[in-house]
Amino acid sequence: MAVVTILGAGAMGSALTTPALRAGHEARLWGTWLDDDILADLRAGRPHPRIDVPIDPRTRLFDSTDLGAALDRTDLVILAISSDGVVDVLGRAVPHLRPGLPLLVTTKGFGYDGEGKVQLLPPLLEAVLPDQLRAGCPIVAIGGPCKANEVAAGRPTATVFASPDLVVADQTADLLSTPVYRVTTTDDIDGVEASAAMKNVYAIALGVADGLEELGGEPWHNLRAATFAQAVAELQRVTVALGGRAETAVALAGAGDLEVTGLSGRNKVYGARIGKGERAPAALAAMVAANQTVEGVAAARFAGDLRTQRAIAGLPLLQAIIEILDGGDELATRIAEAVLPAKR
Amino acid sequence: MAVVTILGAGAMGSALTTPALRAGHEARLWGTWLDDDILADLRAGRPHPRIDVPIDPRTRLFDSTDLGAALDRTDLVILAISSDGVVDVLGRAVPHLRPGLPLLVTTKGFGYDGEGKVQLLPPLLEAVLPDQLRAGCPIVAIGGPCKANEVAAGRPTATVFASPDLVVADQTADLLSTPVYRVTTTDDIDGVEASAAMKNVYAIALGVADGLEELGGEPWHNLRAATFAQAVAELQRVTVALGGRAETAVALAGAGDLEVTGLSGRNKVYGARIGKGERAPAALAAMVAANQTVEGVAAARFAGDLRTQRAIAGLPLLQAIIEILDGGDELATRIAEAVLPAKR
Repeated sequence: MAVVTILGAGAMGSALTTPALRAGHEARLWGTWLDDDILADLRAGRPHPRIDVPIDPRTRLFDSTDLGAALDRTDLVILAISSDGVVDVLGRAVPHLRPGLPLLVTTKGFGYDGEGKVQLLPPLLEAVLPDQLRAGCPIVAIGGPCKANEVAAGRPTATVFASPDLVVADQTADLLSTPVYRVTTTDDIDGVEASAAMKNVYAIALGVADGLEELGGEPWHNLRAATFAQAVAELQRVTVALGGRAETAVALAGAGDLEVTGLSGRNKVYGARIGKGERAPAALAAMVAANQTVEGVAAARFAGDLRTQRAIAGLPLLQAIIEILDGGDELATRIAEAVLPAKR
Repeated sequence: MAVVTILGAGAMGSALTTPALRAGHEARLWGTWLDDDILADLRAGRPHPRIDVPIDPRTRLFDSTDLGAALDRTDLVILAISSDGVVDVLGRAVPHLRPGLPLLVTTKGFGYDGEGKVQLLPPLLEAVLPDQLRAGCPIVAIGGPCKANEVAAGRPTATVFASPDLVVADQTADLLSTPVYRVTTTDDIDGVEASAAMKNVYAIALGVADGLEELGGEPWHNLRAATFAQAVAELQRVTVALGGRAETAVALAGAGDLEVTGLSGRNKVYGARIGKGERAPAALAAMVAANQTVEGVAAARFAGDLRTQRAIAGLPLLQAIIEILDGGDELATRIAEAVLPAKR
């Protein structure tokens, strides 16, 4: 029995208490200063307010002020913080970390480094660690199609843990695997991170096709499927440009996660609102006002800069999405021109 | 202006009159002896009974007895016959063909050759052609995510035309392309055919996940997405075993067509019925009684034999689907064991 400390009591962090407990460990769930309402619900025995699934009462809950206690003598840290907060939270955790403690990261996205270059999250997280922890606390990225509500409820889920050091990836996978939360491993952390970050962007476009269908009452399945195929091609290109392997973008963390993200979740819902006729900026404002982060929007902005900085060619669907996020209309035409074969 | 003759007045054959006419050609639609009711509806100005979309009245309709007239001085033949009838219909057409006439084939599936070996359709079709036509009437396969109702209605569609001779593929693509029916080309006809045939099989498994969701009122999206990723991996393996390229199985004719086939269509509907609790043989009998062919069922049987004959390893999802088609229960467990990473 090990101690697993999950930082972040949002949907995914809370969901991971299920495999942690079923694998026989002590599960600690630490909430940020934004998670007080969530912890209050869980302490009162109510379901998690974001996913409407009960969290096992054996979970030990820690308030934001109790970070040190949450990390005391833990064996595994899981960072499950939104992309705009994860670097900050890791910085606060540093005094309580010790070498030999792996850092499992569910957060997906990009950030800017000190020189204004777009980077995946692992190097930005490593930059926060002091030297002796940087080698001692290896970062392991979690990818694959995992909706938090289903992980929490114990429904079958395939994940991939990625670390340049496969031994570390395997050890953490052994710790958290259960009969229904199954983990494979890879050393292609760049591929997993690039695919996972970009799939949120492309899920917006899949949502737009769904919204067009709702709007007109007629399916746009051919366009949606062509969008899916183009998205996988672009996932591969971004992955390779960031040092990952093209096949990673076709497997669980790429095509698999794109599939589930296109079925439900905020990025798809946001796209569907746009497809139904709302302009993107207005739809985003409404979702932000309802406290719903749409990770794909920030990721699209970063990806636009990334494309320029690294001169990544062949991303017309990304371009179409950025134009739509900027308020562009003629959605079906714009997406079709990006995803259909060129005119003859 | 060319003459395009479409053999088969089912959903896809009739739908292709839309791009043929919009590209400026004469469109002829020949119905088999099973299509009399369809032609009667079209002649009466009613929508096509299978897809509930009107067919342009400029389409020239030919009864099954008028095959020679339908093929007289035509410039392009499109075979849009179900997989169990296409070899027979091509045999009947042979006396009316002439060298220089490309044969565009929408039919997907497998068949047995004279030695009982499972083959893709193009070699089986070529075997029907006399020598002078075999070289003169090159077969071009159509792949990609194309629901017939959307092609008929003129909604944006991405397709791929495949022929070992890229010049022929390009020429036929030039003939049929329109601003909304866009065609790319490839010389990987084996890859397009293998992917297109197998995606019908895997769509059944995607449907099962949808059915489980309907049955219990809870999503099984994680399982569905893991199934999708495993299906793409198996599409690649079958494609390569049949001489195609792995990347073809990730593009329009593979992952793209799997996406659209998993959204709607009979294979997915059949899987959903099973997921909701019907045993597979009973569900199939009901669909056959309703005149609904489920192409993935026959394809799964052929694929099982193909796997044995060519010793294709790594197809656990195909195996699970075959077991389910045989009446196997414990669907979620059976599929999960096939698509989740191995237990640790």
